[in-house]
This record gives sequence, structure tokens and C-alpha cells, in this order.
Amino acid sequence: MDLGVCYYPEHWPEERWAVDAAQMRDTGLTRVRIGEFAWSRIEPEPGRFDWDWLDRAVETLHAAGLGIIMGTPTATPPKWLVDRMPDLVALDREGKPRGFGSRRHYCFSHEGYREEAARITRAVAERYGNHPGVVSWQTDNEYGCHDTVQSFSPAARDAFRKWLEKRYGSIDALSEAWGNVFWSMEYRSFDEIELPNLTVTEANPAHWLAFRRFSSDQVVSFNRAQVDILRECSPGRDITHNAMGFYTGYDHHDLAADLDVLGWDSYPLGFLEMFRFTEEEKRDYARQGHPDIAAFHHDLYRGCAKGGRWSVLEQQPGPVNWARHNPAPLPGMVRLWTLEAFAHGAELVSYFRWRQFPKAQEQMHAGLLRTDGEPAPALGEAREAAKDLAQIGSGGEAHKQAAIIFSYDAEWMTQIQPQGEGRSALWAAFATYSALRRLGLDVDILPPSADLEGYSLVVVPCLPIVPEKLARSLESFEGQIVIGPRTGSRTVDFAIPDNLPPGPLETLAGGRITLSESLSPRISIEGDDWTAGGWLDHYEGSATPEFVAADGTTCCWVNANVRLLAVWPEGSLLDEVILRAARDAGLPQEPLAKGKRHRRRGQTLFEFDYLKGTVNWRETAR
Amino acid sequence: MDLGVCYYPEHWPEERWAVDAAQMRDTGLTRVRIGEFAWSRIEPEPGRFDWDWLDRAVETLHAAGLGIIMGTPTATPPKWLVDRMPDLVALDREGKPRGFGSRRHYCFSHEGYREEAARITRAVAERYGNHPGVVSWQTDNEYGCHDTVQSFSPAARDAFRKWLEKRYGSIDALSEAWGNVFWSMEYRSFDEIELPNLTVTEANPAHWLAFRRFSSDQVVSFNRAQVDILRECSPGRDITHNAMGFYTGYDHHDLAADLDVLGWDSYPLGFLEMFRFTEEEKRDYARQGHPDIAAFHHDLYRGCAKGGRWSVLEQQPGPVNWARHNPAPLPGMVRLWTLEAFAHGAELVSYFRWRQFPKAQEQMHAGLLRTDGEPAPALGEAREAAKDLAQIGSGGEAHKQAAIIFSYDAEWMTQIQPQGEGRSALWAAFATYSALRRLGLDVDILPPSADLEGYSLVVVPCLPIVPEKLARSLESFEGQIVIGPRTGSRTVDFAIPDNLPPGPLETLAGGRITLSESLSPRISIEGDDWTAGGWLDHYEGSATPEFVAADGTTCCWVNANVRLLAVWPEGSLLDEVILRAARDAGLPQEPLAKGKRHRRRGQTLFEFDYLKGTVNWRETAR
Amino acid sequence: MDLGVCYYPEHWPEERWAVDAAQMRDTGLTRVRIGEFAWSRIEPEPGRFDWDWLDRAVETLHAAGLGIIMGTPTATPPKWLVDRMPDLVALDREGKPRGFGSRRHYCFSHEGYREEAARITRAVAERYGNHPGVVSWQTDNEYGCHDTVQSFSPAARDAFRKWLEKRYGSIDALSEAWGNVFWSMEYRSFDEIELPNLTVTEANPAHWLAFRRFSSDQVVSFNRAQVDILRECSPGRDITHNAMGFYTGYDHHDLAADLDVLGWDSYPLGFLEMFRFTEEEKRDYARQGHPDIAAFHHDLYRGCAKGGRWSVLEQQPGPVNWARHNPAPLPGMVRLWTLEAFAHGAELVSYFRWRQFPKAQEQMHAGLLRTDGEPAPALGEAREAAKDLAQIGSGGEAHKQAAIIFSYDAEWMTQIQPQGEGRSALWAAFATYSALRRLGLDVDILPPSADLEGYSLVVVPCLPIVPEKLARSLESFEGQIVIGPRTGSRTVDFAIPDNLPPGPLETLAGGRITLSESLSPRISIEGDDWTAGGWLDHYEGSATPEFVAADGTTCCWVNANVRLLAVWPEGSLLDEVILRAARDAGLPQEPLAKGKRHRRRGQTLFEFDYLKGTVNWRETAR
Ligand SMILES: [Zn+2]
Ligand SMILES: [Zn+2]
Ligand SMILES: [Zn+2]
Repeated sequence: MDLGVCYYPEHWPEERWAVDAAQMRDTGLTRVRIGEFAWSRIEPEPGRFDWDWLDRAVETLHAAGLGIIMGTPTATPPKWLVDRMPDLVALDREGKPRGFGSRRHYCFSHEGYREEAARITRAVAERYGNHPGVVSWQTDNEYGCHDTVQSFSPAARDAFRKWLEKRYGSIDALSEAWGNVFWSMEYRSFDEIELPNLTVTEANPAHWLAFRRFSSDQVVSFNRAQVDILRECSPGRDITHNAMGFYTGYDHHDLAADLDVLGWDSYPLGFLEMFRFTEEEKRDYARQGHPDIAAFHHDLYRGCAKGGRWSVLEQQPGPVNWARHNPAPLPGMVRLWTLEAFAHGAELVSYFRWRQFPKAQEQMHAGLLRTDGEPAPALGEAREAAKDLAQIGSGGEAHKQAAIIFSYDAEWMTQIQPQGEGRSALWAAFATYSALRRLGLDVDILPPSADLEGYSLVVVPCLPIVPEKLARSLESFEGQIVIGPRTGSRTVDFAIPDNLPPGPLETLAGGRITLSESLSPRISIEGDDWTAGGWLDHYEGSATPEFVAADGTTCCWVNANVRLLAVWPEGSLLDEVILRAARDAGLPQEPLAKGKRHRRRGQTLFEFDYLKGTVNWRETAR
Repeated sequence: MDLGVCYYPEHWPEERWAVDAAQMRDTGLTRVRIGEFAWSRIEPEPGRFDWDWLDRAVETLHAAGLGIIMGTPTATPPKWLVDRMPDLVALDREGKPRGFGSRRHYCFSHEGYREEAARITRAVAERYGNHPGVVSWQTDNEYGCHDTVQSFSPAARDAFRKWLEKRYGSIDALSEAWGNVFWSMEYRSFDEIELPNLTVTEANPAHWLAFRRFSSDQVVSFNRAQVDILRECSPGRDITHNAMGFYTGYDHHDLAADLDVLGWDSYPLGFLEMFRFTEEEKRDYARQGHPDIAAFHHDLYRGCAKGGRWSVLEQQPGPVNWARHNPAPLPGMVRLWTLEAFAHGAELVSYFRWRQFPKAQEQMHAGLLRTDGEPAPALGEAREAAKDLAQIGSGGEAHKQAAIIFSYDAEWMTQIQPQGEGRSALWAAFATYSALRRLGLDVDILPPSADLEGYSLVVVPCLPIVPEKLARSLESFEGQIVIGPRTGSRTVDFAIPDNLPPGPLETLAGGRITLSESLSPRISIEGDDWTAGGWLDHYEGSATPEFVAADGTTCCWVNANVRLLAVWPEGSLLDEVILRAARDAGLPQEPLAKGKRHRRRGQTLFEFDYLKGTVNWRETAR
Repeated sequence: MDLGVCYYPEHWPEERWAVDAAQMRDTGLTRVRIGEFAWSRIEPEPGRFDWDWLDRAVETLHAAGLGIIMGTPTATPPKWLVDRMPDLVALDREGKPRGFGSRRHYCFSHEGYREEAARITRAVAERYGNHPGVVSWQTDNEYGCHDTVQSFSPAARDAFRKWLEKRYGSIDALSEAWGNVFWSMEYRSFDEIELPNLTVTEANPAHWLAFRRFSSDQVVSFNRAQVDILRECSPGRDITHNAMGFYTGYDHHDLAADLDVLGWDSYPLGFLEMFRFTEEEKRDYARQGHPDIAAFHHDLYRGCAKGGRWSVLEQQPGPVNWARHNPAPLPGMVRLWTLEAFAHGAELVSYFRWRQFPKAQEQMHAGLLRTDGEPAPALGEAREAAKDLAQIGSGGEAHKQAAIIFSYDAEWMTQIQPQGEGRSALWAAFATYSALRRLGLDVDILPPSADLEGYSLVVVPCLPIVPEKLARSLESFEGQIVIGPRTGSRTVDFAIPDNLPPGPLETLAGGRITLSESLSPRISIEGDDWTAGGWLDHYEGSATPEFVAADGTTCCWVNANVRLLAVWPEGSLLDEVILRAARDAGLPQEPLAKGKRHRRRGQTLFEFDYLKGTVNWRETAR
């Protein structure tokens, strides 16, 4: 695994570049990511390019022996471009323009901006595509950051209409598929269709789902246009993009299909603070992040990536600037995170950033160096990690034990129609992942289309749309299966299936869900030594009750090798169900102490202690 | 009492209609409500009507012996109409258009839409007005749902100016009445007056009150235009409309004056979850709804209805889709709710809806049938209720025991000027109602204009504007009276009266309120065995202290047969005051156990147990 | 000290004016503030002035012996003016116009409105400038109330561009100063710069800081235009303006530089309810206000005022209308507040208002008289205070004990970049002030430019920008110094200084801050008998640890006479640090019981008991 760092030569005096490059190498870094926000320096005026400084930067880094990951600068179109095309900015859900002054201020559907993005991408790709120092390319930066996938602009509306026409063929087919007779919402032509925002009460969920799919497709096609240019101008280099944490704005499976390597940006402390962890978790892991945050994304994005190639393109090295509170990592955590990425199979961990910039929006975001150019605490940990990696060697294959099935449209659907506040497919997957990992198991997170061969246990926490192929694949699966609520509860157009949920899984389930309730957190279903709640599916069929509460409520049913979870995947019942399924699957369970996690790669077992910030590894007989 | 159901033939294959109709009759239903969202099917293109399908549906239902309640489809103008008149949509308080894509996307003040609404109403009324199967009409659907009474459009502004000119005559009269000298807000002509939204800080409360009155009047006149057409085209049929729960956007007394029967839509579980009940109540009654929710509205709307004729036009039959959490009712509740409506004097309970629709916004809203056409749990309860009703017979008159005076402008005024966060006239009425009912009493909720004859106890929980007639009527009332805070505290134009509060009730009160405080929930006034708070009126006059707190604060004063509540009507002091007033009124009190409620109709006493979901009835000597 | 009252003759019948004036005098009042909202009465139509009524009002008040404080009516431009210049209204941060219908609906940058404001100011000043009854002038009213300093209008944008050009000279200097290379935010001309609202994610903090400075400067220049006219037309009169509580929208040091006396509006109960006090404080002091609220502002505004001349232009006399809950003051509090203002050196306390107005927005705001013209409780307390003041005499000088350094840009910067949620320079100053006062000390709150001579202890709770002059002045200061976090952490353009924080205080600190963390309230750093948190600065240098937590964290460092607080100034550690610093400074500490405060003026010691609402004074040997 390579170690790298994100670097902005345009921020620093030119005489410092060689010094920095030498220190990177000395630290054990071999990759440097540059260029992704530099449009205003590359093309300071429309059509006038200034390559000199970047040529020299590339040469300097290359001369130091660093492999360059070059970014296309399309996330930050300069002011002169926005002034030339004022309508390139996205409109937010309220219809307000999202203007210049920070970043990602473009609408993915704006044709003019797509041309400009292609133009600058080609310019950079032609300049550096065959440079020996450039080892790979990153397209744009963090698609969707700051909620930028959805735009409610005229450009988006027009593109959405065309997208719908292509998908549905006839307007009557669309009205029928969406059930638009419901509130006289029927259309006479595609030109009558508006975006689903600013309606009086919620728009048709089928309308929203189509818009979410469309918006995702716009990201994918925007990205593909860059990929095509880069493949043409820079043959033989990997192309990557940096995904984010707990982010589902576009379908990462679709995006990754056009990439060689899927990267992601790992900020465990910020994510802990900003996402739905308990107060206790936020307190206990304030300087470490919850022990499943990084690993969940490692396994999720490995499952998204074509050929399983993935990397960490940004690794938190110290306090950041963007969370509600921004503590420093516990000593040891930067090294731990680095080795954990290795244990999960990363090709690269790249720290963000080399040197803290004393100005502008991220002035409080730590780097490996402080603003004054002296080492920050993370530099030493990066150096240590480099030594560890040299000692460990190349690493073996991951083990197939348990798999979780997750799809992006599942999360879109639970966002569009939670039915019970906060019920989310993504967080059902995370809770399931954590339950499995606390048993010491290795987990893969797979798309619905994945091959299940080799796994002992498959969990489908919440998958409203179950493709027929997955249904067949689960029917022939011989390991243990756990099916969570809402799975199979919708057709591809967000309708309840004719045969009721779980739709295509009726055979597998040996029955049907005749009624679904969402339950508030005030209602707790009490079992012997477990509690459950959040949701309740009423099942009718041939399965037998397994977990039955004191009041007679069946919270889990068993049908041969299949468990049907009737309540929301969370809390102590989830742990019990996962434990039994793992046992029945013949998997070795070793319930881990608080804060501990394991991960096997080949014969090597990595042991992470998130409370102490330590990591150990040892060879095991498999 | 009839039982009925809401039905959407346009959602289902035509061959199913007769099957459905037969099953409705078999269940014991005699009424079917149809048509209120069908504009796009009735008039699929401008001016082209398609009556065939609806003719056949009407025939089929009629042939099965069902009486049809036909809706006018004006709540959902189709897209072609919105495209023809883009400015028919309402603007929200922020000035944003409330666009097409759900329902109720029209501004009540838009003249063009008023013409269109009249046109479609006339078309439907002419088509079915004399059909023997049509027994009554419902205008539009849930006026005000999704906060749609107030529109901040140019059309509303222009109509508001005319309305003000009519009301005030001269602009100087308006400026004087509102006290506009206060911040140089004086106008020189009615054309200078804007809507009260988007001001820097709050607009003049008199300005807001006028706008609330105007907005209510616009609903009433919109409705009256339909009523006039229906009376003309469909003589002899009742006209109704379906009001909502805890909703005060327009004056229901005014609307009901044009109707024969006032209906309402009863969703006790959703209302419990979405309105201001305590966490404990939300937990204990999650599957039942608070035991006063349905009854409060029954008695409120009976008090609004001309001649006291009212019905439940939509009755929750299972989980709904729109609350934060959506559990299923406890078994028995659908029957209980049905019989409770009877006990309070309903003419009809109509379940919403016949069959759950698997698509669009309400796909998770249960029906009597499931999406697959099989019976849902409520079907059996409806059948049982039908049998119960047949056994009980026609029912006697309600008893006059206690009356609560409530007006819609009272709630508008506490919303416009709560003075203390959350102080609401509506919820003061609800708390009072609940206190009376927990003593086993029958309660009527009356407008200020009502005749008080026959009651033993009258409570005025919070009525800022007290009409002179009510003042005189209370002065001559010989039963017990309880007057809550803010009552009589304002003139008709939202000014403090010259003689201070309680204004026209000074004689009744034997004194005046010289100072009013609002108290945060942090401050609790402690009595012997009660606590009070929320508000504190300082009284000067001849009344004598009744409830005096440990710190010397008088929380309730007595002046002959009148009690003056100096604190907010809530909590244990309210219970004490109501208990004493009921005793002094000679009313039989029987404090009921938790979750139990009583209601007498003629000689029959109905006993409801909300914890168990059961209902019993027995004959009593009155 | 004078006592006065705010009076609105335009609200009342003319025959009442003399009665009111006589009663004011009888109460002991000698000043009356009038006119600040009367534009629509002074100029009822464009260009047509109606002076008669105001002439008579002035004569009547003057004849009664009252000195008149005349307001310019620019806070409430009448509707006809808004209709003539619709774009004079401010735009809010979302881009929505802040329309007519309340007050302060103008944009400070609108040139047309500036001309109108000058025109009406000159008209009033020429009319009354030399009237013997007019003793001083108040400009406008509560600049910034209802968040009105910042406007996002085209007028503001154009003025901002000019302001930037003047400040930075060249666009490259600006881009460099702000670090706009960061996200390709570089500009090619000042005309490319937009306002910092409506960006995708946060704008550059340097951009925001410039906009805050600009917005403040617009207020100052708007005010100065009036001051210039008043000085020209009304020589010899003091000019004042009424500032507000916990309000930092503009730089009060800058505004006060143009005024003779700085006034402020003191509403202790409303402020307690609406600002960040604990639930316990809000409960215990609901009828008194936290005992440091009034005093903090007295000392803050005395420190802002040229020559230290300040007054209370509005004093709460009873319940107000604008807080979440609005209780009445405890009996005695109006007198206590009045004498406390005297103890801190006020020239005037003016009650707001004479008589409660029964209409419009503030109808629930108490006065000295009730709406019916009878005395409200505060009238007697004002009378009593007048007698007390007569007995006390003119009062001596304040004592110099402890000083707090506060600047407005400090608060802007912590608002723009809190880094940890809720970290605020203003509230750090308040917490520090309270800690000092609970030791019985007299405190001054000074600008960074102040002379520190004579003080024994100087605390700089949080001052990101430390002017060089202050750094030198602290270096030569011989008393005790306490420096809080973030102090010296930024350059004038919001960059981290080259030498790291505390920048210019490096010598004083004997070292540098190499890393700063913000800590959530979940994380508590535990000492022997103190706790700390909120922030953690990592210090490297020659200072020695003073307060070291159980886990080894140093929370306070000592370098000679300087203490460096590494955690946020709050909680029990702050108390400990202030206690030690006061001891080392040789200041007499007398830790006061709950709710008690002391203040010395000359030889007189005032003792306030906020729990009881009492005040005593006695002569002391200094
Ligand atoms: Zn990001
Ligand atoms: Zn509704
Ligand atoms: Zn104010």
C-alpha cells in the first residue's frame, strides 16, 4: 500500500516545493495529490493559460520520486466563468441560487458548464497526460459535497424531462407507473412535468425517486465525460474519484463502474460528531471516531469498486474545521487508521493535507505540517505507519465470511418515505455491520447484483427494491440469510408489489407482510433479554416465530435458513439475531471487548483497540 | 347512524367495482364517498369531459344500494389548468410559489381559479345533481390542509385591500383602529396596505388579525360559490365538507353556516403523534389516541354545525402515512371510535378508505382492504360496529351539562400574540374539555353567540374578544361560570379595552385585570395539593380569593357564581377549579379511571375504555 | 443623575399632555424622550410637514420643566417613502426583501434613503435645534434591532465593492490577503466580488469579516451624517444613541466616537429569557434578570463612550412583549436597576415608556402608567428612586480594579468561525465579568486601544486580533494578566499569524500555541476541585503549568505575571484562575453570596441583592 499526501503548491512559495517534496519522501510517502482546486491559477483569464508554475511543481515533485495524482479542477469554476454563465449555478430546493464564493457552485445539468468542464479537463489532460510523474487522475472533488447533487434549476428540469421520456417512453406509461391518477396528477406530455420541490405537501414518492435517479445519473455522466477525455489523453493511468462518508447522494456503484479505483475521504472524528451516533458514543470515541466508521466505508467502497480496487484519498491527520466540535485525534489514531485501511485492502492512504493553510475556509484544518511549516503530531505517525507497512509486506486476500447487501436506491427510498421518523436503509446497514464486527467477523458490503458464493451469512438489512436476480440468488444460497424490514416492499417505480412485501422474496420468506407499522422510540417491545422496536411487520406464512416478546409480538421469524426480522435492525434484538445467524452459519464468533475490532488479511490478523489507539497484528493459521 | 366508506373507482379496474360495492353492503355500509380528486379523469383536457367511467361507477354503486356522497374535485386542479394560469398557485409566507405536484395548490383569492372551480362544480352538479343514487355533496376536500388557507400572492393582496376597504370604510378609520401611528405605519390609501408577511419584525397584530379574518372569509366565499351551484343543480341533497383535527385556519362557524352537515376527518393516532400531547400520553395512547381527541372534535363540530348535524367523513382504519410514527390501532379501536361518534350524535361515520392504494403519496395509508384486495383488520371491526348500531337503534338526544365557549378568532389571536410561548386558546379549550370529561360529564363546545339555556356550567377558557351579547348572556346565566385568562382582553380590532380586561365582563368579574404576566414552565406556583403557572393575571375588584398559593399568589378568584382563573387553564389547579365549579353547579361528578370516558345519549350511557379498546353501553335512568 | 421617560404625545389626546407632564415632574423625572417614531405625523405626505402638534407638545413638556431628548424619526420611514423607493428596503441573508409593516425596514447602503434621512433630520433639527426645551438629540433608534445591520441588497453589494477597493487598493492585494487561491476564489476586479451570503458552503471567513466591518461602517457613517446635521443646527446639545443588550452587530466603539453620550436600552428580564443563560439562572432570576446583565452593559458602554459618558435611554418598568415569556419584575427591581445604573456612573435613566399603548406591536409592553392612564407598579418605584438619588447626591468616581479587554471584531470572528459550536468572544467576556464581580470587584470593559494604567488586573478573555499597541501595553503592564484562548490567533485579515498564536503576544506568553482543539460539552476535563473544557490550546514555551488535570492536561499556564488559559473561559476553572489572579494582583476579594453584587462609586459602596430585589449603600473608607 502506498502512502501519499494532498498538496497545494499554489499555496506556498516556489522555493519551498523541493523542501516539501524531500520531506514527504523522507516521511515514507510516495504519492502526492495536486491540482483539484487550481483552475483560477491554471486559467487566470478566459482562454489564457498559465502552465509554467504547474509545470515546475510537477517537475519538482516528480524529481523527488513522488507519483502524482492529478486532479481536474472542475469543482471550483472561477468567478469569470460564473459571470459569463450566471445560470451555471445550481438552485437549491427553495429555488435560491447557490452562488460563487466557496466551491461546487455548478449545476450538473448545465450544458454550458459541461462544455467548460470538458475544455479544462482536456487542457490539463493534454498538458500532463503523458508526463512520467503523473501516475493517476482524480476527477473533480467530492461530488455531492455540501448537498450539491440535486439542483432545482431550469437546466435540471429540462434534462429531467428528457431523462423521463427516455426511461418511460410514453407519458401515459409514466402516469400509470407513478399512480398519478391519485390526486389528479396525471400529465399530458413530458413538458408538463416539474421538479418535485416546492409542492404544497410531499410530491409523489415515485416522482422523487425518479428525480434522485436522474440526479445520480447526471453525476455519473458528468464524471464519465472527464473519464473519456482522460483515457484518451493519458493512457495507462488509473482514474479515481474521492467519495465521502455516510453520503448517498449519487449511486456509487454506477460511478465506480467508470473508474479504475474508488477513493474516499476518511474523517472519523468529524463523522462521529456530525452523524447519528449516541451521546455516549460521541463522548467515548470523541478522539477516535466510532470503531466502525472507517471500516464500514472501507468495506462499502471496496464493494462498489470495479475489481475491488479502492483507496483513502484524504485521511484526517488532526482536528478539522467543519464539525460541530473539532478535537484532536488520540495519539496513535493516525497510525491506527492507516493500518486499518491496509487491513481492509486499500491501495493508498493519502493524508489531507501536507501543510495547514493559514487562510480561507479550512485554516483550522490540520495537516502533517503546521501553518508555520513545522511538523504537526500526525507527521510522526505517518512515518511510523510507513515503517509498519514496510515490515508487514504486501498483504493477502480478504476472507469471505459475512456479506451485507446495500443499494443506494434503498437509502433514497427510506429518505423519501421514512414512514417512521429516522428509519434509514444506510443506518440499518451500519447497525448490522457493527453487530457483525463486534462478533469479530469480516464483512463485505455488496450491491444487489453481487455473487454470493463463498459467504456463510448474508444480511439484507433494508432493501425495498429486490431485483429478481437477487431473489433467485438468495433462494439458491445455502448459508444463513437475515432479511430486514421493508425488503422487497416496493417495485422499481415505488409501488407496493401486487403480492405484497416481500415481493420477489415471498418464496424465500414462506409468506407475506400484510401490515407494517412504524413505532416511535417511546414504544419498546420487551423480550427475555432483549428489546426491539422502531418498526413492526405483521407476517403471515409458514415461518415459525423465533424471538417472541412478553406481549406475544413476534420480532423475528425463521423459515429454513432464512430469518425475517420484523422490527427495525437495531438494539439488542439485532445483536441476538446476528449472533444466532452467525452460529447457524458455522462462523467463528468471538464477541469483542468495547472498542476492539479485528480484521484478517491473508494469514494476518489485525487487532485494533479504539479506546487505546493501538493496533497489533500477528500471523494466524487461517 | 350510517356507516360509509371513501372510494376511488378511478384507482381500480372497472370489473372490480361491483365486487367492491357488494362487499361494502355486506359489511354493513350504506354510504360511499367518491369523486373529490378526479378532475384529471373527468376533464382530461381543457373542455373535453369524460363522463362515461364515472357514470358507470355511479350506476354500479347505486345499483348495490349505496347512497353516494359526491365530491367536487376542486382540491386538485390538473396540470393543464395550472399551466394555463400559472399564478393560480398560492404563495407561501416566504413568497415562494406552492406548485403543482401534490394537492391544494390554489390560492383562494385567484379570480380565474374561482371561475374554473365554479365551472367544474357546475359540470359535475349538472351531470349528477338529480341522480337518485346521489344523496349528498361534499365541497372540495379539507380546506386548509397543508396550511393552505393563507396565501401571500398578489391576488390575495388585492382582495385583502378590497376586503379592508369594505370593513373599515375609510383609511383613516383603519389606521386609527389599528393604532398605526405607533411606528409611523399610517396609510394614506387602501392601496398602500401590504400583506403582513416579510416584515422586519412582527407586523401589527391588528394587521394579522384582519388578514386571518380575510383569509377565512375567502374560504367561506369560495365554498359558498359551490354551495350555491349545488343547491341550484341538485335540490334536496345535503351539502357537507370535511373539516380536520386541531385545525383553526378558517372560522368553522362561518363555513358551517352554509352547509347542511359539517363533517370532519378523524385520525386519532396521527393527531396524538403530531400535536402537543405529553411524552407520556404519546406512549400510553400510541395505538388509541388520547381519549379526548375524537370526542373533542365531535363536540366542537356539533357546536359549529347548523342544527347540530355532523358526521365523520374520514375515519382512520389502520396505520396512516403522514405522522412522525405510524403504528396500527389497538384491536377494537376502530369499532370504539365508530360507536363513540354515534354516542356524540354523528349522522355518519365513513372510513377512509375502502382499499389501500399501492402507489403515490398515501400508499402507506391503510384501508378496510389491503392493497391486494383482501380484508385488512378494520373491515371486521366495521362489520361489528354495523351490527352494534343496528342493535342500539336510533339514539336519543344529548344532555346539557357543561358548555365551553370557543371562537376561532380566539385561537388566531393567541397564535398572533401568544405573549407567553405556546399559550393557545384552542389548547386551553382542549385542556378544559378533558378536565370536564374526566369527571364523567357531557360537554358541548359552543360559539360565543350560543344560547346558554339548560346548561349548569359554562367555561370560557380563553376568549380575548367577548361580544356584548355574550357578556349579557353570562350576566343573566344562573349556573356556574369559569372565566379563563385573556378573556375580554381585546376589542374587535385587537386593542386592549378602555376599561382594561376583562372588558365587557367587568361587571361579571366584579373587577379588572390590571397586569398580566406570562410565566415560563420553569416557574411553578405551588398550592396545597395543586400547582399552577403559565400565566398570571393581577386582579383588582370585589371578588374573593379562592385558590391561594403558598407564596400568597391568588390563582383563582370567586365573584358570586363566577370563578376567575388567574393562571393558565392547565394542570392540577384546572382540575380543582373545574371540580369545584361542577360541584357548585350540582352536576354529578364521577371521576373516571385512567383512559375511561362516558357519554350519554338519551337514556343510554356509553362507557369507553381507551386503555383496553373496549366500549359498553347500558340504559340508565337519566 | 437624571431620571426621564420615553413619551409619545402622538399616541394620546392633546388635553392629556400637560397632565402627563405634570405627573412626570411630580414623580421626580426631569427628562423626556420623544419623536423617534413620528415621521408619518411630521410629514404625512411627501414634502408636506405638520409641525403644529409637535410644536405644542414640545412647548407643553418644556413648560412643565422637562428637558427634551428629541429623536430623529429615521427608524420608521413611512409607507409613501417606501412606495417611492421600493428598493430602499434591506434584503435578508436569503435574498428576501424586509418589507414595510413594522420598523427598521431600510438598507443602510441605500443612497436614496440616506438623502431622505438627511432631509428629515435637517427638517427636525432646523425646527427644534435651538429650542430651549431641547437638551439633547437621539439619532434614529436601536441601530441593528431585529438584525438589521447586514443587508444583502444590490445597494449593499455596490457599496461593499467600493469599500473594499478603498481598503485594499488593488484586487490582487485583496485576493492575497484573503487567501483566495484556496478554492479558485481569486478575483480579477472589485466588480467580481459578491456579498458572502448564498454560497454553497461557508464563504471565506476573511470575506465575512470584511462584510461585517463594512456593514458596521455603514451604520457609523449613516449615523455620522445625522450627527453632522445636528451639530450644525443644534449647537450645544449632546447627541446620543440607544444601543441594545448583548448586541454586537456594529462596532460600538466606532459609533460612540461620534456621539457625546452613549445610551443603551436595559431589559434585564427579556434578556435573561432570550440569551444563553442556564435553565437554573432563568428560573432563579426570572423576575430580576441575572445580576450581571445590567452591570455588564453599563461597564461595557461606559468603556465604549467618548469620555465615559453614558446613560440608560430605556429602562424596563414591567413585563415586556417580546421575550419568550414575559413575567413582571419582582417588587423593588425597578428601583434597584435605577440605583445600579447610578452606581456604575450613568447620567440618565429613562423609563420606557410613560404609558402603555393599548394598540399595535407593543400593546403588552408595560409603562409607568397602565393603558387606562392609572399608575402601574413601576411609577412608585421611579418616585422612590428619585428620592434616593436626591439623598445620595452626585456620586464619586469609579475605582480602577480589574479591566476586561473586548472588541467587536472579536465577537464577529467567533461568530464567523466558532470552530466549536457556541464559542463566543462576547460570552467569554460576560463569563469573565461575572467571575470578577462575584468576587466583589469593580470591573471596566475596555477597547484594545485603552490605557491600562491604574488597573491591578487585566483579562483578555478572547481577542483574536491583538493590535501591536495592545501587545506592547500588556508587556509593560505590571499588574496581573489573564489571556484566554484564541487571543492573538489571527491577523487583521483573518489569517493565522506567521508565528502562530498568540501572534503579537508571543513574548508575553513566553511561547506559542501549536494546536487548538474545540471540545464538545460531553468532554469534561477534571481537576482537583474544578472542571474545564470547551477548548484546548496546546502550548509550547517557557511558561509553567498551573492547573493540571487528573489526566495530565494543563489547563492554565503561568509566565511571570501572565496566566494563559488553555481552555474556554467558563465554569469552575475560570473562577479558580480569576481568584488566583486577583489575589496575586493584591485586589481585595470578598466572594459574594448568591445574587449579591457590590459596586463602589467614590466612597459609597452599593450592595445589591438580586434575590430579594433590595439595594443598600453606605460610605466606606476607600
Ligand atoms: Zn467535503
Ligand atoms: Zn389532510
Ligand atoms: Zn429593539
